[in-house]
Amino acid sequence: MSNDTRTPPGAASTPDALLRASGSRREFLRNSALTALAAGALGACKTRDDAPANNTQGKPSADGGASAANAAKGAKPGVHADSDLSGGSTAPHPDTVAVSTRANADAMDAMHEKGVKAFPAKTEGKGNQLMQPRVEKGVKVYEITAREIQWEVEPGKRVKAWAYNDQVPGPQIRVREGDRVRLVLKNELPESTSVHFHGVEVPNDQDGVPFITQPPVKPGESYTYEFTAPNPGSHMYHSHHNAAKQVGMGLLGAFVIEPRRQRAIERADVDYVMIINDGFHGYTINGKGFPATEPIVAKLGQKVRIRFMNEGMMIHPMHLHGMHMTVIDKDGWPQPAPWRCDTLNVAPGERWDVIVNCNNPGTWAFHCHILPHAESEHGMFGMVTALVVQK
Amino acid sequence: MSNDTRTPPGAASTPDALLRASGSRREFLRNSALTALAAGALGACKTRDDAPANNTQGKPSADGGASAANAAKGAKPGVHADSDLSGGSTAPHPDTVAVSTRANADAMDAMHEKGVKAFPAKTEGKGNQLMQPRVEKGVKVYEITAREIQWEVEPGKRVKAWAYNDQVPGPQIRVREGDRVRLVLKNELPESTSVHFHGVEVPNDQDGVPFITQPPVKPGESYTYEFTAPNPGSHMYHSHHNAAKQVGMGLLGAFVIEPRRQRAIERADVDYVMIINDGFHGYTINGKGFPATEPIVAKLGQKVRIRFMNEGMMIHPMHLHGMHMTVIDKDGWPQPAPWRCDTLNVAPGERWDVIVNCNNPGTWAFHCHILPHAESEHGMFGMVTALVVQK
Amino acid sequence: MSNDTRTPPGAASTPDALLRASGSRREFLRNSALTALAAGALGACKTRDDAPANNTQGKPSADGGASAANAAKGAKPGVHADSDLSGGSTAPHPDTVAVSTRANADAMDAMHEKGVKAFPAKTEGKGNQLMQPRVEKGVKVYEITAREIQWEVEPGKRVKAWAYNDQVPGPQIRVREGDRVRLVLKNELPESTSVHFHGVEVPNDQDGVPFITQPPVKPGESYTYEFTAPNPGSHMYHSHHNAAKQVGMGLLGAFVIEPRRQRAIERADVDYVMIINDGFHGYTINGKGFPATEPIVAKLGQKVRIRFMNEGMMIHPMHLHGMHMTVIDKDGWPQPAPWRCDTLNVAPGERWDVIVNCNNPGTWAFHCHILPHAESEHGMFGMVTALVVQK
Repeated sequence: MSNDTRTPPGAASTPDALLRASGSRREFLRNSALTALAAGALGACKTRDDAPANNTQGKPSADGGASAANAAKGAKPGVHADSDLSGGSTAPHPDTVAVSTRANADAMDAMHEKGVKAFPAKTEGKGNQLMQPRVEKGVKVYEITAREIQWEVEPGKRVKAWAYNDQVPGPQIRVREGDRVRLVLKNELPESTSVHFHGVEVPNDQDGVPFITQPPVKPGESYTYEFTAPNPGSHMYHSHHNAAKQVGMGLLGAFVIEPRRQRAIERADVDYVMIINDGFHGYTINGKGFPATEPIVAKLGQKVRIRFMNEGMMIHPMHLHGMHMTVIDKDGWPQPAPWRCDTLNVAPGERWDVIVNCNNPGTWAFHCHILPHAESEHGMFGMVTALVVQK
Repeated sequence: MSNDTRTPPGAASTPDALLRASGSRREFLRNSALTALAAGALGACKTRDDAPANNTQGKPSADGGASAANAAKGAKPGVHADSDLSGGSTAPHPDTVAVSTRANADAMDAMHEKGVKAFPAKTEGKGNQLMQPRVEKGVKVYEITAREIQWEVEPGKRVKAWAYNDQVPGPQIRVREGDRVRLVLKNELPESTSVHFHGVEVPNDQDGVPFITQPPVKPGESYTYEFTAPNPGSHMYHSHHNAAKQVGMGLLGAFVIEPRRQRAIERADVDYVMIINDGFHGYTINGKGFPATEPIVAKLGQKVRIRFMNEGMMIHPMHLHGMHMTVIDKDGWPQPAPWRCDTLNVAPGERWDVIVNCNNPGTWAFHCHILPHAESEHGMFGMVTALVVQK
Repeated sequence: MSNDTRTPPGAASTPDALLRASGSRREFLRNSALTALAAGALGACKTRDDAPANNTQGKPSADGGASAANAAKGAKPGVHADSDLSGGSTAPHPDTVAVSTRANADAMDAMHEKGVKAFPAKTEGKGNQLMQPRVEKGVKVYEITAREIQWEVEPGKRVKAWAYNDQVPGPQIRVREGDRVRLVLKNELPESTSVHFHGVEVPNDQDGVPFITQPPVKPGESYTYEFTAPNPGSHMYHSHHNAAKQVGMGLLGAFVIEPRRQRAIERADVDYVMIINDGFHGYTINGKGFPATEPIVAKLGQKVRIRFMNEGMMIHPMHLHGMHMTVIDKDGWPQPAPWRCDTLNVAPGERWDVIVNCNNPGTWAFHCHILPHAESEHGMFGMVTALVVQK
């Protein structure tokens, strides 16, 4: 047993090579994500049974003392020069590591590995898809139907959801500052509902709060909102009726208003909306739990803009590995000066825009740092994704 | 049934007209709030049974397709030009909206409507009232008695509270930087207590922490604090003995120190202290749960300063509809530069001062965006109020 | 009974005198903390039975009316000039304060007092100790063994912990920007593990995420990390395998990278790492719950830098009494401009650096302002410590 378990697990550079070969981001995501990532990018560490012993990175040893000694000889990180460590002669002392302990560890690790290797896992349905409006006499018209669906949150886990156009989150709406926008809501839910444009400074009668600014939209009815897109930035739309339930069930989406003039600091090669949630569907990023979440992919040197939006009931301090985030906007409004962090606390209803300068190649974990939202004894789950920086 | 349910619900402009007619803010709140708001401002959407069909705003239809078609003709928001929708001929198809579904929706909506229409609901007792000190030889003297009372949190819901001068929150204390201040605490509680001036940089022996800076004040005893008001800003006073219980039970209040020189940015027409809490009395704003919370009222063009103070155990990201907030102070200290947001995360013990430039007329929901703190299937409750901007 | 209970409880200046006499900070903490603080600094309020009646500070009275009257005569804070209040003649009226109420209050207060007087309480084991590396050919080598230990969180409360080098938090690692650093992890746990350098922008293969950047380090095995210390600031190291459990059990520590050039604003006389946690060991500061937490000690006029790090699952808004904190860094990155507060919300995974200008002498409570994390009916516990500013 000790033999195969100390086989080096594969090169960390492999995923990048795979990704590099995969073409444009869109192409990558469409054609090769499942293959490349599942087989390589995030499953970089090959299984112990099939990996050749020819890679010197990240090689574990059974003997910390030997490692230290090797390190003293100028060994590289993760390298244990004592090559016979690959043999059976330095097996851990039975008193130190009992067979059952090792078997238990292996069993747990196998579950963890399985999750990572499955990422990004295929599930039915994709939320937060950019929606193309119908343009009528210069007005951008979005038709949104709210109805109950089954939603596959993670592979094999189907939940009841209330969705806009059968997506959780609902379709991503992107308009331009000054655009005339019309949203026609059709209610096919068993409850009344409404749409509130969270953060958008609409006229009062378009604010979507039943009994304050409009009547509830009854089951079977429709309702039309219309306004000129005012303050630019990362906003949201969601139900404002029985909202603790309805938003928790999925009636939410991104509403981005692009500014007439973009500031230099907000220019990015990749513009990614990340809606985090903790409603009835568990801990999710854009409607899916790991490993069904979607990786963000960029090339080395590119800039990624992430628009965090929290539609849940809890804070989620989102932590990016390997690179920092430069915070530029809060709720769509520019911060007085950009500031940097690697863990950004996003509270319910908040939106934060950050820029990541992708200067560190590799596949980087990106997750909520409330660890029980991201990992259990069965492996990573929930609010976990990755930022893949391709060389 | 279908007939009356599609009756237009009344003009959104009605409440402003009512409010406009109501005179000064104080007069409004004293004389007309219950009448005007209950009947109009926030009950703007008239009941379906009594509303005439002559208003074209916010009119629901039973047919989203027709709506879209109308919209295509250039119809205004919320308008469904197909006037026979008001008749019975386009009743929802029975397969789509069953009678029982509609009845259930109506029943739920009626509960929601009732809550909104009751706002601002009358309850016994009002906390956070500005306290006039007795001035003795240039010293502002505040006499504060802590004792157990019954407190009506929302209509008909009476809870046991521990209160300063029979108010939850306790009386609002406002002094000026440099003022000599004396607070005489009388303890009529069944437990010892103390007062800590949270955020106020008092001399150590006035800090109110039993066994560190003073003895506990026993039941039946009194204790006198005295200091010269130091750092200006939005501060608090509360018990610092058995505080998880005592503050949770209501022993807390605002302690505002006005600066000797006001910065231009902090000048406001309305200066509103908003103490949010989640203790034994449920989710409250200034000691009351919706619909017994108090609306903030301003005229179009005015500036409102809101001093958020969290005396609870949870974060509360406070979301204002329709307008943004400009954050100027944190814990009474100026931020290096003001910044804007519409959802401000307020953590326990924090104070945040914001300015709202009231440039968008109407009645705007203002609530914690942890939705279960603000709405249930029975309607809005807890941490909900409104900012009313009168034309 | 009434007699001794109104005996003045001792001067608040006493602790400072004691501390002043105690020499340097290190000497103080090593030699006299337990004696001086337990007997004086935080047990400043002598027990009622043994305190002489010669101190006029903080004297409670049984009669608020008399106090107010005295105050009107220009009495000083806490002083009740009516000296016969020290006698038995003004005992509380039996109807006001029943004997049983007073006895209950005394019993509760005794528990509270006992906790404060025990501070800083001696426990076995001290976490977060600065670790001296072995230097090999210019590389700073840290050998870290993860294993299960018993950890005394507070006096008499021993818990099972998973610890680095038998410390919770693990040894504090401090290197300099540009240093070559090697960390040799030896895993003596019954589970696989790994080390992630949270906030440190290491090369991808040193990032410590099993199955993404390395294999898990199995029980009995070792693993070597090596990199050149990149971005300076307050960072952390912790397990990134089964981390919700492993970090919760104690596998975490501070990883500070000192900058090549220190900014003027970050210079401090005392540099204190404060790791807050809420895992399986309860609410802790640097691995201990009050009264076993460690006070921070500075002299009047000194600057204290506090590096807050949250390794838990909840936010902790840390509140300092008596002085404000100037926030300079977030996650090791300078804020665009320093800003001030007295309550700093620290979310899981976040690090915040603040400077306290110690200009207000005394012993100041310093605690999480989610009060149930700091106090129960049995007294202060958990996330409570003190900043002692010595005259």
